[in-house]
Amino acid sequence: MRIGKQDQSFTAIATSDAESITVRGHDLCDDLIGKIGFTDYFWLLVLGEKPTEPQRRMMDACLVAIAEHGLVPSVQAARMTLAAGPDAWQGAMSAGLLGMGSVVAGSSEVAAQFLQEVLDKAEADGTDLETAAIDSLKALKAAKKKVPGLGHPQHNTGDPRANTLMDLSDEIGVSGKYVETLRILGKHAPEITGRPLPINVSGAIPATILDAGWPLEAIKAVPLLARAAGLSAHLYEESLRSIGFIMSNHADQAISYDGVESSKTQAKRA
Amino acid sequence: MRIGKQDQSFTAIATSDAESITVRGHDLCDDLIGKIGFTDYFWLLVLGEKPTEPQRRMMDACLVAIAEHGLVPSVQAARMTLAAGPDAWQGAMSAGLLGMGSVVAGSSEVAAQFLQEVLDKAEADGTDLETAAIDSLKALKAAKKKVPGLGHPQHNTGDPRANTLMDLSDEIGVSGKYVETLRILGKHAPEITGRPLPINVSGAIPATILDAGWPLEAIKAVPLLARAAGLSAHLYEESLRSIGFIMSNHADQAISYDGVESSKTQAKRA
Amino acid sequence: MRIGKQDQSFTAIATSDAESITVRGHDLCDDLIGKIGFTDYFWLLVLGEKPTEPQRRMMDACLVAIAEHGLVPSVQAARMTLAAGPDAWQGAMSAGLLGMGSVVAGSSEVAAQFLQEVLDKAEADGTDLETAAIDSLKALKAAKKKVPGLGHPQHNTGDPRANTLMDLSDEIGVSGKYVETLRILGKHAPEITGRPLPINVSGAIPATILDAGWPLEAIKAVPLLARAAGLSAHLYEESLRSIGFIMSNHADQAISYDGVESSKTQAKRA
Amino acid sequence: MRIGKQDQSFTAIATSDAESITVRGHDLCDDLIGKIGFTDYFWLLVLGEKPTEPQRRMMDACLVAIAEHGLVPSVQAARMTLAAGPDAWQGAMSAGLLGMGSVVAGSSEVAAQFLQEVLDKAEADGTDLETAAIDSLKALKAAKKKVPGLGHPQHNTGDPRANTLMDLSDEIGVSGKYVETLRILGKHAPEITGRPLPINVSGAIPATILDAGWPLEAIKAVPLLARAAGLSAHLYEESLRSIGFIMSNHADQAISYDGVESSKTQAKRA
Repeated sequence: MRIGKQDQSFTAIATSDAESITVRGHDLCDDLIGKIGFTDYFWLLVLGEKPTEPQRRMMDACLVAIAEHGLVPSVQAARMTLAAGPDAWQGAMSAGLLGMGSVVAGSSEVAAQFLQEVLDKAEADGTDLETAAIDSLKALKAAKKKVPGLGHPQHNTGDPRANTLMDLSDEIGVSGKYVETLRILGKHAPEITGRPLPINVSGAIPATILDAGWPLEAIKAVPLLARAAGLSAHLYEESLRSIGFIMSNHADQAISYDGVESSKTQAKRA
Repeated sequence: MRIGKQDQSFTAIATSDAESITVRGHDLCDDLIGKIGFTDYFWLLVLGEKPTEPQRRMMDACLVAIAEHGLVPSVQAARMTLAAGPDAWQGAMSAGLLGMGSVVAGSSEVAAQFLQEVLDKAEADGTDLETAAIDSLKALKAAKKKVPGLGHPQHNTGDPRANTLMDLSDEIGVSGKYVETLRILGKHAPEITGRPLPINVSGAIPATILDAGWPLEAIKAVPLLARAAGLSAHLYEESLRSIGFIMSNHADQAISYDGVESSKTQAKRA
Repeated sequence: MRIGKQDQSFTAIATSDAESITVRGHDLCDDLIGKIGFTDYFWLLVLGEKPTEPQRRMMDACLVAIAEHGLVPSVQAARMTLAAGPDAWQGAMSAGLLGMGSVVAGSSEVAAQFLQEVLDKAEADGTDLETAAIDSLKALKAAKKKVPGLGHPQHNTGDPRANTLMDLSDEIGVSGKYVETLRILGKHAPEITGRPLPINVSGAIPATILDAGWPLEAIKAVPLLARAAGLSAHLYEESLRSIGFIMSNHADQAISYDGVESSKTQAKRA
Repeated sequence: MRIGKQDQSFTAIATSDAESITVRGHDLCDDLIGKIGFTDYFWLLVLGEKPTEPQRRMMDACLVAIAEHGLVPSVQAARMTLAAGPDAWQGAMSAGLLGMGSVVAGSSEVAAQFLQEVLDKAEADGTDLETAAIDSLKALKAAKKKVPGLGHPQHNTGDPRANTLMDLSDEIGVSGKYVETLRILGKHAPEITGRPLPINVSGAIPATILDAGWPLEAIKAVPLLARAAGLSAHLYEESLRSIGFIMSNHADQAISYDGVESSKTQAKRA
């Protein structure tokens, strides 16, 4: 069945024949394996060019910042899934990554789009960034929506990962308009929303990596790749010391049934 | 519901409080972000210790070797899934990783287990590796099973990635009993099976990375993490130049319906 | 980690003890197994009450309408995934269901929301449905957006499934405000958009099943459950007569590499 | 890339043109929508023929038996995933289905294969079923493996769903060699293994549905389709009264960190 446009039948990522594999214009075996680190390769795969030193450092920092934060919901889902199907790591890994939605972990994407909107608004309105940011915050407040990239359920006096990323970004000369926008938002949000709203890691990642030159459309690749590393650690540990069903048991016990009782249960109780 | 044993309710990967996050004994913000590369962090997360220089080089090489090989089935599945649901990168990424099964891509795990079986058999039988390998190959031949880690549908005169990985492994002093076992298998397989069976990348990855000290139980993490990088490139390209539905259309056209005709279709044709 | 509100720790779906399982107020073994059909049970599970006869007939019809339409992208993804990992049906099924996104198959959800928006707009504006529908169509046209629930890539003179569902809905007395809204949209869309835009199955499903009393928030459950049945047929066929890799091969051949040539390839060609 | 055999490029499930859709030899719109129930359609899709009355009743009973059992691990994973990404039902549904592994829920498949093995063994050995069953149980005991289809973590005096299914199967004349085999296993298991091992639902489902004529290779479709219905109820409830993060919080609190303390934490504690 022909769905959608059918006219651009090309890929620019890789090609191969019986003797060689070409990736982004490089011979995989002669030029890449053993000669390029994985972070550089990730950048090359997505963008078609190797990163500069600051770009690689910023990407490494972002990946390290978001890869692991203990037994978060997506890690629990992955470990429960491995406990139920120990032979299918790919299934458990996927169950974990599927939890990278718009609310947690994957929220870097939402924050990236918000930063872009504020920048676009400043340009469209012909105002400075501060005005656009304040207007955007007021609009969110009026719509009773959360501010993407700010606030954290646990680290409510400040997400230490965010601060470290922003400092590094300044230090290595990466910081630009996205970091500036995020800082302006972070400065005005508490007063406008009436809540403590420190910059969080899902705001700092897009701000710093967009300023480093990473494309907005690929922003979700950063937390997804990072968490694949964290999930690997959890799945390995799960295979040695399983806690998937222990967590599930405690979670189950925390919830009560408030539905209708069956006549059988009523009779038994009587 | 209590399923399974409930007694080891521990994790050794990460913990956190409002001010700090500890990962494998390091403070995430003070000691890791900006100070450790992503490959090193992957190793630290899974194994609890930072890799040595040869360990990191071998891991980088394995990840780079398997991250990308063009429009393989799992990449197609991921791109079709993004075309159908452009707002859910996590779903498209998962659809791609779910294709890392026992037959393709994820087959590193099967090869790792086979290498271990040959080594265990040599020890159990009190023979040398060569004898155990030849016996194992004959057993697979008799059972009409494929030899894990050998042969490739496209690179049938030799998988260039495998050779590069094995050479690097020798060069940096990583090669040990797993690489030796794989080479012995590769030497005898063509004669015993009667088919050209060069060492493939899914044999070379477990051989070299196991010799580097990576645990057998976590072997699948290597292709999974690697492919998450390759899939990131494909999903980004898909969002800019979609080919998901073009591929699907061509795939559909290649298959004919050989089921029963409906009476309506019969009538129309008549 | 405490994420979100923590105060409503209840479920009303099921509870159990060592001797009995209660589902929605019924004893599973005494009252349900062997005594209720699966479609009725699906309705009971989601809504807490058994359906009336017209509700069940409408649900059966919707499920049958959307369960199967040949080798669509999500089916291809599922079959390729099973070919790659034959031992993990749950992974292949998931790879298929992940393709139920906003663009295809899962688009019933988008259409449901659009029907609701038109209805809400009529009420908010104090106009009749026709005015609200025309305004909504003009707004979509101006924004260069597709009209949810109308148009089909293959059945461009009319999606036969949609007509059958709408006729049945009239016949069994289910049709109400959602069906009316969809018909009004279908009547005016061709003129306003300048394109033939017949009502499609992803419009007819939400229109008829919402009128039957199914909740808007659970609309996606209908195509997901239905496709799980269609995917079951494809996975079973795939396990007997594999076409996953054949489709993948043809899809691959349809796409050309337009990236940079490696120096190795240049040299070989020269 | 050409992977595997490429010669059987056929499907017998469905085909379509602009005016009509054919499924298993029936015109979808004229003959199926509104005229066939979903359970019958599921059977028709997978097997190519409509079920008899006892076949449909047995399938309905199996689907109803396994669709829902409260907050089991896979349901928790699905609800946590929806809480994290409320806009992607397909992702949450998949996260739930991925937990249908070999250990829980999906274990019907393992039990089906075991029943077949016992039957094949009796035929190969030329013994009666009882002898083959006893030998098979002793072999599992010796290998310290679980007996597929027997035992339950919660219902240890007997899984009520299993008994109901077996009784129904007798009553409607479906019971045959698979049910007989399961009963023989259930009779001898307690003595041979030294543990109470009542027949469980994951044994009774394959036994009864295989006797009804369902194919062994498609056995996993039964729990997968059934759970898609149960998960629908949970995802709808999650969208109205979220408990995903509440469960996750309790699960997290049940697990302690026993890894190395960071120097920062040591200093703080000191």
